[in-house]
Parts: sequence; structure tokens; C-alpha cells
Amino acid sequence: MYSVEVIVLNKEGIRDPEGEAIKKYMVDKVTDKVKEVRAGKYVLFKIDAGSEEEAMNIAKKVADEKRLYNPIVHKVEIRVRKDEDGGH
Amino acid sequence: MYSVEVIVLNKEGIRDPEGEAIKKYMVDKVTDKVKEVRAGKYVLFKIDAGSEEEAMNIAKKVADEKRLYNPIVHKVEIRVRKDEDGGH
Repeated sequence: MYSVEVIVLNKEGIRDPEGEAIKKYMVDKVTDKVKEVRAGKYVLFKIDAGSEEEAMNIAKKVADEKRLYNPIVHKVEIRVRKDEDGGH
Repeated sequence: MYSVEVIVLNKEGIRDPEGEAIKKYMVDKVTDKVKEVRAGKYVLFKIDAGSEEEAMNIAKKVADEKRLYNPIVHKVEIRVRKDEDGGH
């Protein structure tokens, strides 16, 4: 079994009002060390696949076909790791 | 400069209606290899800190004090990495 993380963020250059709000109203009241905040979506898939590549490809297929993100405005990052128990 | 990722998910045992909806209405129409989907919040901080520990502690402080998550229902994962350019 593989854990595949899909992280969706607004592209650089596209405003991120949620991140800006978190920075202005939450972060900046606590510290001045945080220079930027970006907020996004996190989706974790548990995938029964034979290899990291297969797991990655399944997640990509779902994300692309079902429009988990909008390629015009979002960048997407996909990370795979094998689950330690390795079980089913 | 450090990138600190804060990932907030519902705890195991607490239902995740968004993840369930993504699974049922998006994922399961494409593949039967995905056994579970969990949806969560992703927040990326760019922090001007002297060390990984300091960056981690700043992010933790913000997350705890400003209730970026609700400890009753959420688990939070914080990951730090040094930015490659190392610049300010």
C-alpha cells in the first residue's frame, strides 16, 4: 500500500487571499519572522499499487481526469511513499 | 529561509466527509485501487529563522496560539526544510 499526497496551491503570481488572510490576521500578530504564507488543499490517497510509479500514475490520473485542481490557476505537487506496514 | 509545511487532517476515527465525497464521486469513477481518501488543509510558511528547530517552533507557536487547527478533532503534521537558495 502506498500513501500518495496531492498538494494543490495557487501558482506563484496568482493571489492567495486565504494565505494572505492567515498571514495578516493570525501569523503577524504572533511573530515577524514569517515572510510569506500560502494556503492550499491537501488530499491523501491510500493506494493499492505494485510500485511507487503505479501509485503516482493512479493519483495523477484521478487528479487530472476529475479536476482535483485547475491547471490554469493551480500548481500541484504529488508525493509518494510506501507505507511501512506494507500490508493490504 | 525555511519552508515549513503545516498539514491539518481530521484524526483517525473522526469522519472526513470531504475525503469521503472525493473518493465516492471522483476517485471511484476512475479506479478501484484507491482504498482511502483523506482531505485536509495545507499551509506553507516561509520563515526567516536561524535553524530548523527555530523555524519549527515559530510555526508551532502560530498554529497553537492562533488555532490553525482544533486539537480536539485534528491532527497536525509539521515539516521543515531549508530553502535551497538559502537567501533572504
